[in-house]
Formats: sequence, C-alpha cells, structure tokens
Amino acid sequence: MTAARSTAGATILHPSAELAKFASELKYSDIPESVRMRCEDLFLDTMASILAGSTARAVKSMAKYAALMGPSDGKSEDFVNRRMTSPVFAAMVNAAAAHVVEQDDVHNGSVFHPAAVVFPPALAVAQAIGASGEEFITASVAGYEVGIRVGEFLGRSHYKIFHTTGTAGTVAAAVTVGRLLKLTPEQMLHAIGSAGTTASGLWEFLRDAADSKQLHTAHAASAGLTAAYLAQDGFTGARRILEGVQGMAAGMSTDADPARLTDRLGVRWALPETSFKYHASCRHTHPAADALQFAMKQHGLKADDISSVVTHVHQGAIDVLGPVTNPQTVHQSKFSMGTVLALIALRNSADLAGFDQALKDGAVAAFRDKVTMELDEEVDTAYPQRWIGKVTVKTKDGRTLTGRVDEPKGDPGNTLSRSEIEEKTMRLGTYQGAATQEQVKKLTQTVWGISKQAKLGQLLAAA
Amino acid sequence: MTAARSTAGATILHPSAELAKFASELKYSDIPESVRMRCEDLFLDTMASILAGSTARAVKSMAKYAALMGPSDGKSEDFVNRRMTSPVFAAMVNAAAAHVVEQDDVHNGSVFHPAAVVFPPALAVAQAIGASGEEFITASVAGYEVGIRVGEFLGRSHYKIFHTTGTAGTVAAAVTVGRLLKLTPEQMLHAIGSAGTTASGLWEFLRDAADSKQLHTAHAASAGLTAAYLAQDGFTGARRILEGVQGMAAGMSTDADPARLTDRLGVRWALPETSFKYHASCRHTHPAADALQFAMKQHGLKADDISSVVTHVHQGAIDVLGPVTNPQTVHQSKFSMGTVLALIALRNSADLAGFDQALKDGAVAAFRDKVTMELDEEVDTAYPQRWIGKVTVKTKDGRTLTGRVDEPKGDPGNTLSRSEIEEKTMRLGTYQGAATQEQVKKLTQTVWGISKQAKLGQLLAAA
Repeated sequence: MTAARSTAGATILHPSAELAKFASELKYSDIPESVRMRCEDLFLDTMASILAGSTARAVKSMAKYAALMGPSDGKSEDFVNRRMTSPVFAAMVNAAAAHVVEQDDVHNGSVFHPAAVVFPPALAVAQAIGASGEEFITASVAGYEVGIRVGEFLGRSHYKIFHTTGTAGTVAAAVTVGRLLKLTPEQMLHAIGSAGTTASGLWEFLRDAADSKQLHTAHAASAGLTAAYLAQDGFTGARRILEGVQGMAAGMSTDADPARLTDRLGVRWALPETSFKYHASCRHTHPAADALQFAMKQHGLKADDISSVVTHVHQGAIDVLGPVTNPQTVHQSKFSMGTVLALIALRNSADLAGFDQALKDGAVAAFRDKVTMELDEEVDTAYPQRWIGKVTVKTKDGRTLTGRVDEPKGDPGNTLSRSEIEEKTMRLGTYQGAATQEQVKKLTQTVWGISKQAKLGQLLAAA
Repeated sequence: MTAARSTAGATILHPSAELAKFASELKYSDIPESVRMRCEDLFLDTMASILAGSTARAVKSMAKYAALMGPSDGKSEDFVNRRMTSPVFAAMVNAAAAHVVEQDDVHNGSVFHPAAVVFPPALAVAQAIGASGEEFITASVAGYEVGIRVGEFLGRSHYKIFHTTGTAGTVAAAVTVGRLLKLTPEQMLHAIGSAGTTASGLWEFLRDAADSKQLHTAHAASAGLTAAYLAQDGFTGARRILEGVQGMAAGMSTDADPARLTDRLGVRWALPETSFKYHASCRHTHPAADALQFAMKQHGLKADDISSVVTHVHQGAIDVLGPVTNPQTVHQSKFSMGTVLALIALRNSADLAGFDQALKDGAVAAFRDKVTMELDEEVDTAYPQRWIGKVTVKTKDGRTLTGRVDEPKGDPGNTLSRSEIEEKTMRLGTYQGAATQEQVKKLTQTVWGISKQAKLGQLLAAA
C-alpha cells in the first residue's frame, strides 16, 4: 500500500487506500446484526425488482445481447434469459433488470441506488465461486459502505450531469466482487482504480426517454466485476482514482469532499440509511407524492376537487424531472412529477399497474398539467440528508391547502416491515407473470435463510 | 431522426444526428482510393501492435479474464489467447493488446489513437458476421471519421483529465460496429447515445504506472460494440449525448466546440491525418526525440558530449509526461521524456528493445536526469494541429545548440512507405516470439488484399 508514517508510528492511508483496506478486511462478525438483517431485506427487495423488470423491452434487449456474446453454461443465474451463464453476463443482465421498474432502493445522502449495482454482481460471483451466505452478505455490505461514501464524496455537482448509480456504482460493484474474491487491500485498491477509470453514466438520456438507465446499472455491474477479476490476476489501477488530480472527482465534480470517503468507516453503517421505494417512480417524486396523499386524506379531497398543485422541491428534483414535460413512455412517466401526482390523486397509488395505464388515461394527462415544481429553500437545504415533501394545493372551490411529510414512506425512520417487504416482493415478483407465486414464496424463504447457507446455489429453480 | 426544417425546406440535423447519418450511409465508393489504401496501412500497422502487445502481462490478464467469462468458440479471433470466441471478447482483448507497446497510430488534432479502438471491434464483428473486405474498410473509415471529430470536439480541456482514446474511442467503436451491422441513421444515433453514456478513461493511472491504458482501449472497444448491438435490437440512447446539456461535453469538457463534430464530413478525410508511430513511446515525446536526433546528427554529438537538454513543449506534454519523473516499469518509461531522449542519445533509436533494457541501464538513468521540459509558446500555440519539436542542448564543452523538426517522422507529411510499414510489422509481429516470420508475411499479404475479400475469415492461421 502507498502509505505514510504518522509521528506516532501508525500507518496513515490516503482515502482510496483506506476504503480498499476496509472493504478487503471486513468480516461478517464486524457487521451489526441489524445491518445484516437489513441487507437481507434489501436483497429480497432487489430480487423483486429484478423479476418485475425482467419483462421490460430494454432489459430483454440486454439479455439477447448477453445470450449472443456470453457462454450458454456456467454457475451464475441470469433471471431474464432464465439460464446459467458466466458471472459477468448474469451480473449485467440482472443489474439492467433491477433498475427498470424504479422500485429498487435509494440512499438519500448520496442520491445513489446501491442495490441494483451491488446485489447482481454479488450473487453472480457468489454462485460462480460457491461462496457462503455470510460471505455474500459481507461482500454486499462492503459494496454499500464504499459505494455510498463514493457517491457522497462526488457530491451534488456530480449528480447534476452524472448518474451516480452508474459512476459510484462501478466502484461499488468492484468492491463487492473484490471482497468475494478475497482481494488483499493492495489488490482491492487496484480494483477500485480500474473501476473508477471505467465509471460512467450521463443524465442526457432523460430528455429522450432513452433506455440508458438500464445500461448504466448493467455497465456498472459488469465493469466493476471486470475490475475486480483483473485485480485478482495482478492487473493494476490508479491508487488515487477517486481523489487524485486526474481522477474521478477532478474530472467529474466541482464540490468533492475527500473526507466523505472515509466518514466513520466501520462505525457509521450507511447500508441501513437506504430507503425502500414505495411508489414505482423516481425517488425525487416521492416526498411530494406522500405530501399530496397526506393533504388529500386530511382534507377529504378527490382528484376532481383540485385545480392546481405546486410541489416545493430541491434543485436535484428540478434537474432530473424538469426535462420530462410530456412523457412518451412508461419509464419516462416515472420521471414526470405530474404523472406521479396524478396517479396519487386519481388512484391513491403510484404503483406499477398505475404507470402501465397512465399514458393512455386522459384524466392522468389532464391532472398532470395542473402540477408544477418550484424550488424551495428549506427543502433544498435539507437535501440530500432529508427529503422533505411539501405541496400547495388549490381547490376548485377556492381554498389553498398545504401538505407536508418530513420522511417519505420507505425511509429509514418510516421503513417497511418484513411482511410489507414480502407483500411488495409478491406484487413485483409476479408482475406480468415474471414468476409464479410459488416461486416467489420459495425465493423469499431462501433469502430469509441465506446467511445460513454454506454455498450459494440457484435461487429460482423451476417450480 | 430529430430534425428541424430549414426555411429552404432541407432537413437540418443536430450534430450527433448528422454524424450518425454520415456513418450509417457511408459507402465504399464514397471513400477516395488514397484513404482506403491508408486504412489498409493503418490496419496492418495495428495488427503489428496487437502481436507485439500480446505477450505483455497486463494484456495476458485481460485475455485470462476473457477466457474465464467468454465462450470458447465463435468466429472472432482473439490474438492473445489464440482462440476463437464471441466478438465482444475478441474486440476487448485485441484492443488491450493494440495499445500497450505504444506503436499504434495517433491523430494529432484530437490527440486520439483511433486504430486501437476501431480495428479490433471492426475485425471481430466482420469475422462474426462474415462481412466483406469493402464493408470492413468502410466501417473502419466511418469509425475514424466520427471518432476523430468527437476527440476534436471534446477539446484540450477534456484531454487534461480524460484519456480521449477511451472516451471518444467508445463512440468510434460503436460507429464502426454500427456500420458493419448496417444500422439505420436512427439506430446509429442510439448507438452513439449508448456509447457516449458508457465512455470513460482518466489519466490518474499515469502517476502509478498502472495498467489502465490497456483497460481504456479494451473498454472502449467492448462498450462501443455493446452499444451498437443493443441499438440493432431497438435499445435507445440519448440523441444529443455529445452536445446536450447533460451530455459528454457538459460533463467532461469546458471548451467543446460542436462545429468540430461535423467539420466537412465526407469532404475532409480525417483518417489520413493520423500519424504512424516511429518511436515506441508516448507520442508527446516524439517531436523532441526527432529534434534531439536531428541536432546530434547535425553537430556530430555523442551522448557523452551532452550536459543538458531542455525540451520546449506544449502544455499537453507536461500534463501527461510531467508526473513521470522516476519510471518504474517499461510502460511508464515510454512516458518519461528523459528516458526517451536518453535512448535516442545513447542508441539513436527509441524502439521496443531499447525500452526493454532502459530501466536496467545506468547510462539511461544518468542521461534522463539531464533532461527537462519547458512550456513553449510557439509549440503550444501550434498544438494540436502541428507537433513541433524543439530542443536546446548544452554540451560539456560549453556550447548551446538547438534542434528543431516541424513534422515528426510518421506524420502525414513525413509518413511511412508500404515497405517501411512491412518492416515495422515484421519487427513488431515477431517481437518476443509473438508470431513467426512466416505468419507475419502471410498476414501482410492478406491485409494488402483485404478489400478484395468477399468474406473476412481467420487472419492468423497456424503456420
């Protein structure tokens, strides 16, 4: 390791090296029981998202590509093609599937979706090498802890142009796989170096409702996995890819803070800070959706009573959702604040089935045009640590009402119970016939017992 | 296509769309004979670099990874594992090999190495689909024309942090493969969108002599290929990934000029503007190496006569070579101005064999310490259109001499003849026993006749 000696004789590592050492040396017994349990929750939640996403057109394209380029046997499970293949293709395809229905987790502070880029490569490699459940959980936690801190480090300026789930996600995937491959701290640093120099993902696609979000998670998972395998074989990477003068932050951020990279490593657990997604839409819409739902319930309003809704939002919501003024696809409608609020107002739920109907529904389009976004200083200042929802509703009978939620449903202080996760998994897992109820039940049982498994095998045996 | 109508009724496309249309519609008969011939020259030159690079440690790591993850049969030739596989793995491995010995081509104006990212995916896909030699040449030219313009567009600010061969290279690879797959203009625009949002490559690795340069070309080739295959299946990308407000230039450049993207498309041919590399080192060292060689010849100097050399360089040379003050690996020594000039002074040649010995040679180290770089206004202003070499040599007997070249060896105005290319190919192709003389001769014959082939097959049959 590149290291300097402090005056007291202890080794002082630079931030990337400290992250690498942490990830390499993390043990199952170091992780608090509550964090391990939450990791299992998040894994099942991700499997639900993968199954629900497996029927999407863009995901099927990725799966077709994997079938064309990858081997037709292996120990890693591709849940879209429903076949076994090599780890990189299973990771790529499952990561593409994990993110498409916008139901996977989010970490508020880093505005990063760790699950989609951590669990697919973790599972693919664990299956390939026959890792234990404990190793799988440990590696996944390492990926969360590192990836979230990299996202926080890259900061808000990064997120204005770059999709942090693609960029920080590549590093998260590399660390996850690196931990499963038992990389040394030195090798892990090289893996982070190779991951960082292949990290990418730009928001430009939002304007066109293009499929790039699925490509970003697929790419992060596969490029990160590649970086870790290369490092295992001695392939070297930059030692300061995150904080160096020609590294990620230098090229892709103007407000990066290296102190965030190593913030209370091993003491503060970032994994349980992530939120489950309750609505099937971009997370930036959730606070306003909850606030509108609250206001409508409190005042007994129906959609038809409402003449306008102003959502008081943070700048990041305007950056990501602002370009989506006239959604043309189901996926794009999940980035349309107006569509999400219309579904809440009309159906009291912005779930997958709702979005499938939204584009064809004139009532949704009519309500959408009543919704505007305004930058709110309080909300913007609290963000990204807290995602406050505030709406001002004007009614046709002339009233001006407000709604507010301080912690949207699914956030750590307002989280889902295991039975709520099971219910969500059944809903998503059987969406469009992706899996049978029986398969989802078995999967759920397997995941709740995963930490006891000596060797991870196939998860979705034909039932 | 996204298009606007001009007042005259003609369709006006935005720059990315115009590039996509050009690449999609380019025909063999559109390409001047001299450009086609130069394309063959560059392809053979690249094959030489691939063979010479095939024995490098980092390249072998990449090949091992490809063997672990990819299929063990297919129609695409992996010149490192010497086996057939699927296109993405052949492209990835060959692209890694093409760049490692620093003998592949460079385009001065864009500071971009097109060959390493264009020919490996072109060959892999042409072999997989049985394309003709004419199709192979046409696709490669399309990749050069688009990739070079993207590099020029991203500009000097981009190159300060990003390895343009990795970033613009991903787009070049996508366009090359897209043309072979006969993508429509609309599909080609999606391929460019997907390529741009997975484009990456940071210079940070130079400080550590890490293997990332090989990863960058491998990644560009594979990510670009992926983007094109996905587009063929209807997977969509951003329409303005290059020039859009959340696109590549927005995130990775401060001086991007969209007019460069479409600069005289189909009229100005950028491919023959590329230079062959004569010295086996980073192109930024070549002008000074030629200038020193000229000065020593002119004044009849031996290495021992020289007390110091000041190289008068452009800022890009300082950015890339400046961090390399004490080279630790053969590859890093190719980025050490002092080492390159020491080899010129001591051996009159900075070739592969010279670099293999340089680190162990005390005389090289001693001469290296006599060399410094200074920013020169004339050189910097001319760059990157012209790479002027200027040195000031002080001799032990007290003289101050200067050397200057206006166009380094291998540049378009000072290019290599076919017999010089054949000689270079034999030297590189047999380097460290990569191929036999017989194999290199056969390969050379095949490439000189490639445009006549109805269906591209294996290039390096066992001999």
